[in-house]
Formats: sequence, C-alpha cells, structure tokens
Amino acid sequence: MKTVPGGVCAAKGFQAAGVHCGIKPGTTKNDLSLIVSEVPCSAAAVYTKNLVKGAPIAVTKAHIADGKAQAMLCNSSNANTCNADGEEIAQKMCALAGGALGISPYDIVIASTGVIGQPLPIEPIENGMPALVAALDGSPSGSDEAAKGIMTTDTVKKEIAVEFQIGDTLCHIGGIAKGSGMIHPNMATMLVFVTTDAAISPEMLQKALSEDVKDTFNMISVDGDTSTNDTVAVLANGLAGNPVITQEGADYDAFAAALNAVTQYLCRSIAADGEGASKLLTCTVTGAADKEIARTVAKSVICSSLLKAAMFGADANWGRVLCAIGYSGADVDVTKIDVSFASKAGKVDVCRDGAGIPFSEDEAKKVLTEKDIDILISLHAGDEAATAWGCDLTYEYVKINGDYRS
Amino acid sequence: MKTVPGGVCAAKGFQAAGVHCGIKPGTTKNDLSLIVSEVPCSAAAVYTKNLVKGAPIAVTKAHIADGKAQAMLCNSSNANTCNADGEEIAQKMCALAGGALGISPYDIVIASTGVIGQPLPIEPIENGMPALVAALDGSPSGSDEAAKGIMTTDTVKKEIAVEFQIGDTLCHIGGIAKGSGMIHPNMATMLVFVTTDAAISPEMLQKALSEDVKDTFNMISVDGDTSTNDTVAVLANGLAGNPVITQEGADYDAFAAALNAVTQYLCRSIAADGEGASKLLTCTVTGAADKEIARTVAKSVICSSLLKAAMFGADANWGRVLCAIGYSGADVDVTKIDVSFASKAGKVDVCRDGAGIPFSEDEAKKVLTEKDIDILISLHAGDEAATAWGCDLTYEYVKINGDYRS
Repeated sequence: MKTVPGGVCAAKGFQAAGVHCGIKPGTTKNDLSLIVSEVPCSAAAVYTKNLVKGAPIAVTKAHIADGKAQAMLCNSSNANTCNADGEEIAQKMCALAGGALGISPYDIVIASTGVIGQPLPIEPIENGMPALVAALDGSPSGSDEAAKGIMTTDTVKKEIAVEFQIGDTLCHIGGIAKGSGMIHPNMATMLVFVTTDAAISPEMLQKALSEDVKDTFNMISVDGDTSTNDTVAVLANGLAGNPVITQEGADYDAFAAALNAVTQYLCRSIAADGEGASKLLTCTVTGAADKEIARTVAKSVICSSLLKAAMFGADANWGRVLCAIGYSGADVDVTKIDVSFASKAGKVDVCRDGAGIPFSEDEAKKVLTEKDIDILISLHAGDEAATAWGCDLTYEYVKINGDYRS
Repeated sequence: MKTVPGGVCAAKGFQAAGVHCGIKPGTTKNDLSLIVSEVPCSAAAVYTKNLVKGAPIAVTKAHIADGKAQAMLCNSSNANTCNADGEEIAQKMCALAGGALGISPYDIVIASTGVIGQPLPIEPIENGMPALVAALDGSPSGSDEAAKGIMTTDTVKKEIAVEFQIGDTLCHIGGIAKGSGMIHPNMATMLVFVTTDAAISPEMLQKALSEDVKDTFNMISVDGDTSTNDTVAVLANGLAGNPVITQEGADYDAFAAALNAVTQYLCRSIAADGEGASKLLTCTVTGAADKEIARTVAKSVICSSLLKAAMFGADANWGRVLCAIGYSGADVDVTKIDVSFASKAGKVDVCRDGAGIPFSEDEAKKVLTEKDIDILISLHAGDEAATAWGCDLTYEYVKINGDYRS
C-alpha cells in the first residue's frame, strides 16, 4: 500500500469538481462540490445518531437503500437542517445534478454542511450547476476543488488516496473530508466522501465501513458536540477489475486495510484542524481488559476541556488525565494506571500506579510545546488497545464560535 | 422562608473560621477552613462518582458511617488526590483538628480541593491549626472567612442562609460552596458545606440531600469534567428544638424546601462563577413526557461547548440548542420543539415545531447581551419540567486552564 495523489479522483473512472455558487453572501469560497463515477457503484454510508438530522440524510438513505449510487453532491455554508422544506430542497438538488449529468437523481448521495435552521436557497445551486458539471475533472485538481467546496471553518483541505493490491489487481481508494467544529461523531461523522475502483458488493462495502468507523471517526472529538449532518459515504465502481468481493477473506481484508489507511489519515487531519486548534492530541490506551474499555478511556481523555486547555498551555497536568479516566464510565483499576506524555521532543513519564512520580517540568514543557502530542496510558489489565484523536482548546475556538453565524 | 445573613453560622450553635496556612507558596489567600457545632450532629453527604476519588472522601465516608459528625475541615490549593499517602494525610488533618477542638477525629468531615497529584504537606496545616481554632466565630464573619478558605479559581465566595418554620419552631439552614472549574457533578458535586439547627435523623437527612442533588448540583456544569473530589456535606445539630424529623410528612417537606432554597442558590452561584464565565445560563425544559427526559435535555444544552461559545458572543444560534437536544440521548419528538431566549431585556422566540421562525436579530442581540440568560425549551409531550445551570465559554476559561498548575 502506498500514498498516491488524486484524492477522490485517484480511483479509475471518478471525476470531481467544486465551484462557488453563492449560497452565502459576502464570500467567494467554493460552496458546491460534485463527485461522479462513469459507471454505477456499490454505495455504503453511515450517519449521525443525533435525533435532529439534516434533511439530506433522509434523502441519501432512500437513494442508497438499493446499495447503488453514481454521484455525490454536497454544499457548504448551510446545513439544510431544521428547515420545513429541507427534504424538498435536497431532492431538487439531486434532480438538478441528475439532469445535468444524465443520470437518475435517485443515484445521487446528497449532503450539506454549515449553519443550522436557515432556509437553503435553491437558486444559487440551480445557477451554479452547469459550471459545476462543466468543471468535472478526473485529475487531482478536480478532487482539490471538491475538497475546498465542502469546507466550513476548516483551515486546510483534507484529502488522501492510496493504491493497494487485491490479489494481483492494483486498486485505488481515496477520500476527502470536512471537519472543524461540531465534531464528536457517534456512529458516523462530519462529511467524508470516499471513492474506490475496487469491486465489492454493497453488503461487504457497508460492513467494511461500519467496522472501520468504530476505530476511526467514532474516535475523534473536537468539542463534544455531535453534529446533525454527520455522513461518511463510499462509492466503489469496480473499474479496477478485481473479482468482486462478496465475502470475508484475504481480498476483503486488503480492502478494509486500505479503507482504514484513508479514514485514519482523514481522522488525524480533522482532529488536527479542529476549530481553533493549535495541537493534535493522540491518546493511545494499552493494556485494557477489553476493546470497549480502551476506546472509552481514550475518548474520555481527548474530550476533557480541562486537559485540552492544559495541552494548549503545554502544562503537564496529568491529574486531569486521571480525572477523565475516572469519570469515563469504564471499569478500570485506578491504582494500576501509568501515564506518559510524548512528542518528537521526547517522552516524560508522569504517573505510575495511579500516583504521581517526580519528573522534570522543563523536559515536560519541551515535550508539550510540540504540535503533535501523544498521551500514553497503560491500564495493566489486559492486551486490548485503542487510539483517539482530538485537539487543544484555544482562544481561537471561543472566537470562532462566539460569532459563527455572522 | 426568608434569606438571612450568617452563611454556615446562621444556624444556632455553629461557628466557622478560615485562615491562610501556606499550603501553596506565593499566595496569602485563605486555604484552611473549619466549621464546628457545639453539639454532635446528624450528618449526611454525597460524593463524586468519579472512580478516581480524592483521599479525603474515603476518610469522610468512614467518619460519617454512623450518621454523626461535629465538624467539617477543608483545605484548598491541593486536592490530596492520586497521592500514595493521601488517606494518611487526611487522617492526620482530622487528628490535628480533633485535638485542638477536644472532639473525636472520627466526628470530622474532611475535604480538599486544588491541584491533583501533588503531595499535600501536613506541616502548614499543623502550624495553622491553633490560629484556625482561635479564629472560630459564630458571627457572619466566621462564615465569610471559611467560604474564602475553600475557594480555588472562584472569583466570588458562595454563601447563603435562610430561616424557615418547622411547625412552630424557627429553624435555620445555611451553606458555603466552592465551584469554578472541573464542575460537572455526577451524584454530588464540588465542595458544599451546609449547616442547620433543625432536628432531623441521619437517615432522613441523607434522604433529603440525595433527593435534592438530583435537581440542584447534578444539574449544573461548567466544563463537563466531573471532579475527583466532589462532596456535599450537611450537619444538623437540632438546636432549633423542633421535634426530630424521623419520617416523611409536613416537617420533612419544610426541611427539604429550605434545603433546596440553599442548594439552588449555591448552584446558580457556582454556574455564574464558572471558570472564565461572563454569563449565567439557565435552561428550563417544560412539557417533557417524564422528569428524566427534562433533566437530560436541559443538561445537554448547557453542556454544549458550541452553544456556550455562542452565548459568549451573544449569538442567537438556536440550531446549536436543537443539535444538543438531538444528541442528548433523550427520546423526544424533534418536530415539536419550541425554543426561546430570554433575559431581563426581553424574550425572543426563535424556533417552533423544530424549525426556525423569523425573529429580529437586533432584539435577540439585546436579550443575549445581558449577564443572566434563560434558554426556554418546550417539548410539547407532557407535564414534566427541569432546570439546568451553566455558563458561557470564554477566552478567560482557556487562559485559566492553559496554565492552572503554575
């Protein structure tokens, strides 16, 4: 497996584009993105568990109920959520794209992101559709523009692709994502679009995705707020030519590993670019009695506002790590917990058997002043492990969210 | 029932004091507090559910296992948590106070608050004990000094007392609290000390307290972090002379109502003085199908980092209220939710039946620029209600917690 350029256009037969259509006045950034396969695809998706759901989610669910889709359309600047005409607008968007592409509107995955509770005007999307379809491009620039079109307060685009083997067949898988704020996925997450030319049945594609999110998107948090519009969608068009994956086995495993490489990269990117973030926090829990305990502990630690603020200040306040483990709800023996902080500047052990040990504050400060911080926790209770990703809590987060709608 | 001066000294036979003994170098603030009754009391307490517990909690639990206590001792600047010798130090503190007061160390409620994981030196406490006991004072100034002695990053002391009738007997109940950060109580909370001269059995006192915290301390949050040291303790010395309350009925109800007046006041004070807070947020949910749904929804809303930041910015971003209701886990019909924002500047309806309605942004800005904001949610599903208290998320919170230990 190796990283290749191209994002969602790395897989054979996929084209993408992003344009500015003017959904929100006063900005010229891309706000409408499209990803299209030249042939119909197996489709799979996971969605937010928030009871308040973006209108596009209901439409996408209906469209991929048959396990098939051919394109993915997404706007930013407006979440199309809590609007009385939300589903109607989402269907109109699919009809516009389907008409322009010459495919069925029912084969389109639709998503929206941005402010909640403001009507989404169809006019800019209608006016922008011809330019969007005209801009479709199978080169990396198509993926770049699409990645930009789904950004809200993101400061960098999130894009990745890898090539991998299924048997003797060279396959590709790539994805783009938007993250930033309201990031605390439950079952699915924010917006992520993945494309692959591997041949895989809809059932096995859904299985691979559902398994994968447990250790990727469900293990990141920026602010503890589970969005109403979280969606991860994958299209697999089969143009790589491998024998169709219809059951578990070596081929399925190869596909799942490639999917995981893409999703894990996007997770780290989303956490590192959390709203206002200056640091990526990676919490790895080892020695857990079971997998769920490891996940629960890791996620509780990266969600702690107090720890996040301490990491912003490069303060080795490990008591906040213990505190977050203690209230996580996981059944752990707190007298056996070891904690260390690490980064490329070194590693400092700060807690052994649940109690503090002497350490150099200067050394700790050096470690925590880096941009990429590891929080290492050992529970000494078994062999299971899990990793969660988050970010620090900064002045900038407050600034961004004190006046998001303006 | 009416508010009276005196705090924890309002009830007959209680004295209090607070002094600076020097637990943490470089500050002269009070860091050691004592509350004493002239006669033994019924005692009750509730504690954090965090698995990582401050050492004083184990000692207090043992001391009030018989339902009796006579004094409460508390230091700030150090939580005495995650220290190998923690319980031993807590016991030494009780022995010092017991010796100086001429009472059994086993009749002392002990608590600590401050940084986690740094050894608590006994020397300053030993040296400060004579002055602390000498300063005991049954006047309001004694309660004031004790309230100051338990503060950490609190900016104002939290203190209240009321007088009330049990039958024909005039009784008093008063309390002090420390809140500020790591405030997201589960079952109990931060540190709260309540005194009363009402006569009540230990069993009924514990029942009244355990019932009360469900709608008071368990309904506040500053930062979502459940502390390791949360403790609410009540001493009732019976000196008011009412017939001892040993069962439910009018007398118990009168006592419970007075207790609730004290705890609710302290809750609002803790939330309003949350670390870095500039505004008190009060979320009231009505029309819930059951009480637990009302509590869950109210607490989820005041815990949302995104909503908290929006309130800091006086931004009527009601979509974040809907989002927080949606991920709360409560079973609600999102198409029936109404939301309004209110303050002394007026009331603005922003959402009806789960969808946005037109409102004046200028009017909303005026309402949300106040310091005391109500978030009113109606679920239209029944008759139950609940209230939760929180605060906004500000630059100052990040500043305080970026470098707490220094």
